[in-house]
Amino acid sequence: MTRLLLASRNAKKLAELRRILAAEGLDGIEVIGLDDVPEFPEAPETEPTFEGNALAKARDAAAATGLPSVADDSGIAIDALNGMPGVLSARWSGVHGDDQANVDLVLSQLGDVPDDRRGGGFVCAAALVVPGGESTVVRGEWRGTIARGMTGTNGFGYDPIFVPEGHEVTSAQLSPEEKDALSHRGRALRLLLPNLRALA
Amino acid sequence: MTRLLLASRNAKKLAELRRILAAEGLDGIEVIGLDDVPEFPEAPETEPTFEGNALAKARDAAAATGLPSVADDSGIAIDALNGMPGVLSARWSGVHGDDQANVDLVLSQLGDVPDDRRGGGFVCAAALVVPGGESTVVRGEWRGTIARGMTGTNGFGYDPIFVPEGHEVTSAQLSPEEKDALSHRGRALRLLLPNLRALA
Repeated sequence: MTRLLLASRNAKKLAELRRILAAEGLDGIEVIGLDDVPEFPEAPETEPTFEGNALAKARDAAAATGLPSVADDSGIAIDALNGMPGVLSARWSGVHGDDQANVDLVLSQLGDVPDDRRGGGFVCAAALVVPGGESTVVRGEWRGTIARGMTGTNGFGYDPIFVPEGHEVTSAQLSPEEKDALSHRGRALRLLLPNLRALA
Repeated sequence: MTRLLLASRNAKKLAELRRILAAEGLDGIEVIGLDDVPEFPEAPETEPTFEGNALAKARDAAAATGLPSVADDSGIAIDALNGMPGVLSARWSGVHGDDQANVDLVLSQLGDVPDDRRGGGFVCAAALVVPGGESTVVRGEWRGTIARGMTGTNGFGYDPIFVPEGHEVTSAQLSPEEKDALSHRGRALRLLLPNLRALA
């Protein structure tokens, strides 16, 4: 049994990675989270790219534990904001993690932006660092448009204002299973599967 | 005497353009502002570029008055924000024209951005539209870095947090004359001089 560390304390992210591995028949990999390993200093995410942040987190985790480690960094990139909030998605309003303030600010900033220029996408970079081995980083994207108000209660962050391509509802109105199949994080993690298979 | 309309109600902008023309000996051009012409509908600035907004304003002014018309659109483009606030500079916080809120938001968003990634620049697009003649649009830039707090009381907008290249103080600490010589708007207006000279 190979142990794989997901550098996260988010139970939903752990469950998601376990589902993706199980769907591939990778039963030889046991996924553990940061709550399962001794404490180590968590560095702030200050890289200018999603990829840089994901790699830094995975490197820190692998160095501290000696385990193959996966980390991700995600956000929303809005065309009319030149790809921002980007790596600042979680602190766009100036307060880290205030979803409502972040969403309100984006809706205000896009107030005068017409419907045909409201494109954007969720982005996820996922990194795998194997101690003494390779570092890999991949990117998953999920394109859509930014609505003019909030709808739906599933998900978190910018989900209530993101209408995925091919849908008439926001990602906060999709079921967790629908979102798994389509989402930026699901896409990125699946791109890591060849490398994860090599660990099993 | 040729009359030239500057599509603005800002007395400081009118004085600046008059100074620049006088310095070039273009005494045959009389600069008037929007307060000197009959009312016409002012359209909101909703183009995705400074150039588009400046051209739209100058075209509207020329069409309404039959006069050669100059207009500008300005803002600050911050590297760590992918060139935003950009055309949204005046409404970055969601409230149009709230300088303090806009500056506070930028300082918060850049809170974790290290000193070597705090570059940015003021940008000004200036357009000249001659009825029955040419339309011209030019761009002036003024590079610098974004400070971690506000200093100085001259200027407006983002001046108190902008440290121009080659200076140790913010543009809000420069005299109006120093700023004229260096600023993005001064540069852009001077780039229009060949076209303005043709009007005299």
